[in-house]
Amino acid sequence: MKPSVRTSVLMLYVLLICVEISSQNISPRKLEQIKAEVAGYKDIAKSIINHAVYGSAQNRSYERLALFVDTIGNRISGSDNLQNAIKYMYKALQDDKLQNVSVEAVKIPHWERGKESAMMVQPRRKNLAILGLGGSVGTPAEGITAEVIVVSSFDELHRRAEEAKGKIVVYNQPFVSYGETVQYRSRGASEAAKVGAVASLIRSIASFSINSPHTGWQYYENGVQKIPTACITVEDAELMARLASRGVKIVVNLYMGAVQHPDADSFNTVAEIVGSKYPEQVVIVSGHLDSWDVGQGAMDDGGGAFISWEALSLIKDLGLRPKRTIRLVLWTGEEQGGVGASQYYDMHKKDISNMDLVMEADSGTFMPLGMQFSGRPQARAIMSDIMQLMEPINITKLYDNADGTDISFWMEAGVPGASLLDDISKYFWFHHSEGDTMTVQNPIWMNLCAAIWTVVAYVVADLEEMLPR
Amino acid sequence: MKPSVRTSVLMLYVLLICVEISSQNISPRKLEQIKAEVAGYKDIAKSIINHAVYGSAQNRSYERLALFVDTIGNRISGSDNLQNAIKYMYKALQDDKLQNVSVEAVKIPHWERGKESAMMVQPRRKNLAILGLGGSVGTPAEGITAEVIVVSSFDELHRRAEEAKGKIVVYNQPFVSYGETVQYRSRGASEAAKVGAVASLIRSIASFSINSPHTGWQYYENGVQKIPTACITVEDAELMARLASRGVKIVVNLYMGAVQHPDADSFNTVAEIVGSKYPEQVVIVSGHLDSWDVGQGAMDDGGGAFISWEALSLIKDLGLRPKRTIRLVLWTGEEQGGVGASQYYDMHKKDISNMDLVMEADSGTFMPLGMQFSGRPQARAIMSDIMQLMEPINITKLYDNADGTDISFWMEAGVPGASLLDDISKYFWFHHSEGDTMTVQNPIWMNLCAAIWTVVAYVVADLEEMLPR
Repeated sequence: MKPSVRTSVLMLYVLLICVEISSQNISPRKLEQIKAEVAGYKDIAKSIINHAVYGSAQNRSYERLALFVDTIGNRISGSDNLQNAIKYMYKALQDDKLQNVSVEAVKIPHWERGKESAMMVQPRRKNLAILGLGGSVGTPAEGITAEVIVVSSFDELHRRAEEAKGKIVVYNQPFVSYGETVQYRSRGASEAAKVGAVASLIRSIASFSINSPHTGWQYYENGVQKIPTACITVEDAELMARLASRGVKIVVNLYMGAVQHPDADSFNTVAEIVGSKYPEQVVIVSGHLDSWDVGQGAMDDGGGAFISWEALSLIKDLGLRPKRTIRLVLWTGEEQGGVGASQYYDMHKKDISNMDLVMEADSGTFMPLGMQFSGRPQARAIMSDIMQLMEPINITKLYDNADGTDISFWMEAGVPGASLLDDISKYFWFHHSEGDTMTVQNPIWMNLCAAIWTVVAYVVADLEEMLPR
Repeated sequence: MKPSVRTSVLMLYVLLICVEISSQNISPRKLEQIKAEVAGYKDIAKSIINHAVYGSAQNRSYERLALFVDTIGNRISGSDNLQNAIKYMYKALQDDKLQNVSVEAVKIPHWERGKESAMMVQPRRKNLAILGLGGSVGTPAEGITAEVIVVSSFDELHRRAEEAKGKIVVYNQPFVSYGETVQYRSRGASEAAKVGAVASLIRSIASFSINSPHTGWQYYENGVQKIPTACITVEDAELMARLASRGVKIVVNLYMGAVQHPDADSFNTVAEIVGSKYPEQVVIVSGHLDSWDVGQGAMDDGGGAFISWEALSLIKDLGLRPKRTIRLVLWTGEEQGGVGASQYYDMHKKDISNMDLVMEADSGTFMPLGMQFSGRPQARAIMSDIMQLMEPINITKLYDNADGTDISFWMEAGVPGASLLDDISKYFWFHHSEGDTMTVQNPIWMNLCAAIWTVVAYVVADLEEMLPR
């Protein structure tokens, strides 16, 4: 199909979808009926919670995750490890006797870190712990040796643009929040290149550090010189900022063997419990299977992926079968910007009218606090009642603004979305670092996360009506 | 002097000291007089606190420490960095116009880490972050490749002694407290060697980890084979424990280029404010200048050393001159077991009757909580009153059991000792690791630490009587 034709067809789809979505308001009376229906799930919710938290499924998602990440290791997009992970899960989901276990082919980026190192060579020799950023170009074989300019913001960089020419820009921006501060990682290299810098080193996007560098994806702006870029530790950024503030000349040698390969073949991994009455209507529970190439990817997003699998296992264990299909999707290539999920959306958006709820857990599986939800007020009212079913574990809160790169494509098109809210106070201590391992996981928390995740997925999938849009 | 003669002379000394110390009890009336005298220091204490916390000396110890550690870096026993640090401080103390600035020659260990690495090669290749332990022998050039046995205690090692032969022992002991758990680092290698192990890897002695290895000294037992030994991260110890619990065979390659050189020349660094009335009587304030060869040694023990320097600076700034001498000692070779301080004790113990109080800050300079004190009840009563002078900053508590390797020699001989108690809840997160940097320091906390440290040193040094022993 030619691009112009494709665009027209796409626009038609969007129009149809909008019409469809806007037509789904329900009457107040109907809403009350649904809320009453929700209240009837009290015993089922209790049995799910009991099985997950106190019963024979206790600690299962934790144990399964430990076995998986200990066996496979981390799983960056395009790596053999990720391929092995997908094979592992394909077999595990079949062994778990889930339905319609399948993989759906997509293309994902294949960036390889290679060897890398950085050394402050002036005013004294000091090794700098670094992690090159995903998508970065490498350096020449001898590395790049240049004087450093330290800035604390893009504003300062722009004010001192003349000084930055030919230098390595070190960003020592304070950590405000991940959402706000991550822009230095995402576009720090291109901003530095625009003022003539030869490389950029970015203070890791972390709220706490034990000299830990954190990686992540970065985006080169079109038409701007691609310069090598890596994250350094909070400690080293602060060290260089102090030295610079004293007028000390700093010189750094940066070596990065990073290579961008052609896109690789990969797969979203799928399994289902097929609905008894409306099998074509779907609730998605999901997490992503890929990770960064450091640590074990146990938190980001092993935990989210494995409580999603657990949801299907718990429902199957209890002999439950919802009216609608519950579909587990383990996304691939999330860390590069939801690459696998974006293609999944393109392949399945024709069925958007049957997509009841998209759920993703991708912010840790620490102590759960509740559920985040994006959708119309009527849907929110129903979700809020569903959360009351969590009374036995006293985690009944519904928050706004569901969050999840992989489900964002559906949510932007109007499908209700839900994400797990947990205690993320330490999440960015470990995120995208060597610290993302099973050590941060706690089976008790994972049991609770899985219980909430399962009750929500099951009840939404079993209600007589889809959630109003 | 022949050893036997020396022993006799030493015993005579000890006898004399004991007589002297036991003769220093004072009458209840005298004690009340001293307590009244202490109460008279309220205004002086306030002026010291004001100067340190709100006045022109605000943040000085922090700024001085930052300049020092940023310029010198870490300072392991026997290194050029430590020599540079001593030269730096000798000049800085002279520039600060303190009295009797001097260095006193001692011999200290010179162990060099060299290059080191560890790789789990079975069941899959995974780099293990390690830090070789101080004093460890190296491995052959090709490293040591052997199967791993994971144990959680010495008891388990002894029960499974037969299995350990020819293997690398991985200790995955839980962290109970530093005092209790550090035995695995201190003697883990020799215990492993006794059952025929070829190397030992010890879970870092840390209460929290972001994949951070922590080094430290270890002691080979006489007559036991010396095997290479290093600390691994909590995460990797737990990983190998999980793998082993599943019956998975683990093989590790360990390479360590560690070398033990002959003992090196070094110096304890000294400066004084000479007493106006009893200059031969001394209050020591101290910290150690050496550190491990990772991070910046900003916490262990840069902070303690620099608040001790600050005490002399604050007293000098305010034009105060105590009756007794306040002596700053910056110890060398502490990390290898108080090696510099032990020789200082030997050189100066003839003056023990004039040693009023030995103070060391070597547990961080986080938010101060009070002072720890070791001494007789009468001395404790006086110290307790001195702590009441800290009422303006509301840190008035006196605790038991002063702690400090370098002052332990004096305390064991009966001299009263004091150490700073601060909030050490994160201390062992950074201790002996790359995380020991200026980033963990806070100028406000250091101001408060310095204020308390100074008031105690000054008042004790200025009282008409030495502390009762």
